[in-house]
Amino acid sequence: MRPGPYERHRELLHHAVQAVAAGERCAPFTETTWRGAADAGMRSTRTAAKVFGSLLGRAFDLDQPGELGRVATETSPYGTAMGIGYPRCDPAVLLAAAGRATAGWRVAGLHHRTGLVLEMLRRLNTRSHELALAVHHTTGQPLPVAFRAAGPRAQDRALEAVAQAFAESERVPAGLRREETRRRGQPLPVCGTSTLVPRGVSLLIGCPDYPLWNGYPGLFTSLVTGNPVVVAPHPRSVLPLAITVRIAREVLAEAGQDPDVVTLAVAEPGERLHQRLATDPAVRIVDFTGSGRFADWLRQHACQAAVFATRTGLNTVIVDSTDDYRGLLGGLALALCRCSGTARTTPQNILVPASGFDTDEGAKSLREFGADLAEAVDRLLAHPARVARLVGALPGDEVRAALEEAGRYGSVVHASQPLSLPGRPVVDVRSPLVVRLGARHERVYTREWPGPVAFLVGTESTAHSLDLFRRTVGRHGALFAAVHSTDPLVLAAVETAALDAGVHLVENVADDLPADPSSAIADLPGAGAHFVTGRFRVLRSRHASAPAARESADALLDV
Amino acid sequence: MRPGPYERHRELLHHAVQAVAAGERCAPFTETTWRGAADAGMRSTRTAAKVFGSLLGRAFDLDQPGELGRVATETSPYGTAMGIGYPRCDPAVLLAAAGRATAGWRVAGLHHRTGLVLEMLRRLNTRSHELALAVHHTTGQPLPVAFRAAGPRAQDRALEAVAQAFAESERVPAGLRREETRRRGQPLPVCGTSTLVPRGVSLLIGCPDYPLWNGYPGLFTSLVTGNPVVVAPHPRSVLPLAITVRIAREVLAEAGQDPDVVTLAVAEPGERLHQRLATDPAVRIVDFTGSGRFADWLRQHACQAAVFATRTGLNTVIVDSTDDYRGLLGGLALALCRCSGTARTTPQNILVPASGFDTDEGAKSLREFGADLAEAVDRLLAHPARVARLVGALPGDEVRAALEEAGRYGSVVHASQPLSLPGRPVVDVRSPLVVRLGARHERVYTREWPGPVAFLVGTESTAHSLDLFRRTVGRHGALFAAVHSTDPLVLAAVETAALDAGVHLVENVADDLPADPSSAIADLPGAGAHFVTGRFRVLRSRHASAPAARESADALLDV
Repeated sequence: MRPGPYERHRELLHHAVQAVAAGERCAPFTETTWRGAADAGMRSTRTAAKVFGSLLGRAFDLDQPGELGRVATETSPYGTAMGIGYPRCDPAVLLAAAGRATAGWRVAGLHHRTGLVLEMLRRLNTRSHELALAVHHTTGQPLPVAFRAAGPRAQDRALEAVAQAFAESERVPAGLRREETRRRGQPLPVCGTSTLVPRGVSLLIGCPDYPLWNGYPGLFTSLVTGNPVVVAPHPRSVLPLAITVRIAREVLAEAGQDPDVVTLAVAEPGERLHQRLATDPAVRIVDFTGSGRFADWLRQHACQAAVFATRTGLNTVIVDSTDDYRGLLGGLALALCRCSGTARTTPQNILVPASGFDTDEGAKSLREFGADLAEAVDRLLAHPARVARLVGALPGDEVRAALEEAGRYGSVVHASQPLSLPGRPVVDVRSPLVVRLGARHERVYTREWPGPVAFLVGTESTAHSLDLFRRTVGRHGALFAAVHSTDPLVLAAVETAALDAGVHLVENVADDLPADPSSAIADLPGAGAHFVTGRFRVLRSRHASAPAARESADALLDV
Repeated sequence: MRPGPYERHRELLHHAVQAVAAGERCAPFTETTWRGAADAGMRSTRTAAKVFGSLLGRAFDLDQPGELGRVATETSPYGTAMGIGYPRCDPAVLLAAAGRATAGWRVAGLHHRTGLVLEMLRRLNTRSHELALAVHHTTGQPLPVAFRAAGPRAQDRALEAVAQAFAESERVPAGLRREETRRRGQPLPVCGTSTLVPRGVSLLIGCPDYPLWNGYPGLFTSLVTGNPVVVAPHPRSVLPLAITVRIAREVLAEAGQDPDVVTLAVAEPGERLHQRLATDPAVRIVDFTGSGRFADWLRQHACQAAVFATRTGLNTVIVDSTDDYRGLLGGLALALCRCSGTARTTPQNILVPASGFDTDEGAKSLREFGADLAEAVDRLLAHPARVARLVGALPGDEVRAALEEAGRYGSVVHASQPLSLPGRPVVDVRSPLVVRLGARHERVYTREWPGPVAFLVGTESTAHSLDLFRRTVGRHGALFAAVHSTDPLVLAAVETAALDAGVHLVENVADDLPADPSSAIADLPGAGAHFVTGRFRVLRSRHASAPAARESADALLDV
């Protein structure tokens, strides 16, 4: 007999569970030396390009219920005609189908579910290059960046989420502690079992920039804990999640499960599909990564659901002093340019005392700092090959509009300019816009600006920077914050402020991206356990282990 | 040097943590053989009565900020004049004080916080008889019941919550996995720490029936995980929580902590204080046990907070068949009478096929069953001493009104009648009201009725009972459900329905109270982990372990 999916992937799973428990790196998909994971072999880039090409200008079939027509919402910033027609399904029908699939998915049990999810990951791994092309062409990310955000690293991150979900679920004991009831002075044993009960239909709201990187943890954690998932991508980047959904449905169907455990929901942007789905009484879990404004909206309107929202918010850098001025400039320039300003670590607000700050090259005024930063950016972008590798294409019209608007609010320290990609004249690539502002223009820099827009905010002092940081990030959230200071007291104060504001902090690290981005699992809302345990509850069933003896209420009262 | 609170209670804590992890009973406060916990000795009932008496008719001082005046909202259903004037404090001032106390309580750290919380429990243990009197006189519960719900058993339950909160918090590793960033091809180690960050000010909304039993898990879990708590009792039962708050504040102040980590919020019932507090942006956690209606209100309006709501809802018994008809009758009669129908296991809706059901005494029609149940109730209440021990005083006017109203909606199977307590002629004690209804009167029996009101709902069949159960309990919640059936297929179907409806189930156990009520911790929302992990998040701070080498952005790009 062929082993089931759990048996086939047990070794991989236990490896991952142990690594997560020990706080160690677990990256079988990234580390090609690890067998098993990629046993079917990753398709070559050439095959992937062919497969990707074959998807363009066609209907993308998923065989989902409630199909009303087709919808094509994507345009490639690299000029490739997308024209992929996704099935536009009646949201009520999709939710009903997910609801019908719930009981079977619950009954499949933790082990079988986890096995199937690992099979999905294994197949996604073989399609890494194709997924990278899908991310590249819908987000504008340079291809190597897209491969990191959509390929083995994203799968390793998903595996970490799966291992965590599996381990947390296994911690729930199946049997209950032995209880007793007494009758006529005689103990009567009561046995019981506890059952992990999934919360219900889960909704993944896709983000436009990192649809897989940000989407996989919620998607796969929900699946492992027994919740069907309706995947609703951002209209600008549907394909990466559509391919993921298709693979998931194939795995489910082959295993005899209802494929509607995972469905894709797309619509024309004007239909407000995300809002429609998030507020449906049937949706019990919502995962979202994106603007603080929509996260707030979800908290206020999706009251029936557990909302796991990661706010992109106002990434902030506090500059107090440095003994590595060149390193600081280089790191900031890099962060500003990376992926047209959409990287997880791109700062929007750089808080600097208006009176300047101390460096290993002497005191620098705010004006000098701005000029030096602009120069660092220009130096970085001087090589077209590097631009191609680092910046990528501007993803959407609203970014162009933002670049125009933001410049009007202060002194332009570095103007956003068109850059050229070698051999691709039609692609719109831009350098970052850096605007110097007074701290009083809070309404400008507390907006979340898309793309490569950054503000150099002149504050009264580092203490004032800290106040601003605590208040603005505390209110609007952020994916990360950084501080540069040579003063241990300032570092301690910023650490406290970051805890108050509720944001991860990086200190005096010019290049803020760790070598192992899969550890970004720790950046998930609730950082681990809560991200899992909020998706199920535990119900108990108890019964007398012997048939109840016949007796009167009088006897029952002799407790 | 005197050992700190953590060292003093370490043994107790580790005993409890191990017991919880092993799924074993942990009841040091109940088991008097266990030393340490009750080392200061419980005050005698005589001393407790004296202390209780000394509280009556006076101001109850707490030395809280923002005091605006006094408020006295309690009346004892046993005729004792209460007249205790609690401080009425400005809610905004209380929340601001809790906010100010947050940083210090966070910085105190997990071990110190847990030590102080255990010291609170130890002192509460010495005051068990006094707390029982407070519960008895405000809820109407018979004194032995009040002692169980307010004394050592409630403390053991709280200890279980504390152990769980401690263990879940300790699972968060302090150090991060080692990361690297690379510069000029050289690895540069990045070190990091992760910090458990409490969510923020917690609000405990007290319930009128079991203020300590239901209140302690949320209160102490929030405190261990670092969140200050504003305790807002139900106006009808303030004293038990007020004594608890006073003891907590004493322990905090003695340890040099800000006593405003725990405060009491009371107001006149018309002031809608619970609503005011629950929707304040500063409140980040809400604990509530009570009606599904208010739980719904909280979910819709307290969007800024994590809401842990336990719905009392519609406790339901499904009767399909039995081989112990006398046991069934006796158990139901007992559950209906217990604590004037306010017990966790008092059924409101008893779903029975209108055509009757099979028993070991032959087929019984719905009418016969009603008559037999009424007789069982009367037999049970025939002895005044038993009434005193079992029923207690009717707690409030709205219960009297409910008893009058409910009788109008169907055939009265058992009328609620005044009962007499020996030697206490003024006390209002009532037998339960049982009303027979058709299943179509759903609007009547899907209301939550306070006090001893139960409906015998005639359904078309057991399948119909299951439909009703799934729908009504799924919508309104319940603390428990029970089924009586001799048919394994029916039991299996009810088990599935209970999972769908999201309620704990008891099968064929006539007396549904387990001998160890402290295991009721498993009945908490999320049953364990989620109840804890939803109260904090984990933030990371990373820094290069060597001073950043000075280098250009060009080098940084060689990643």
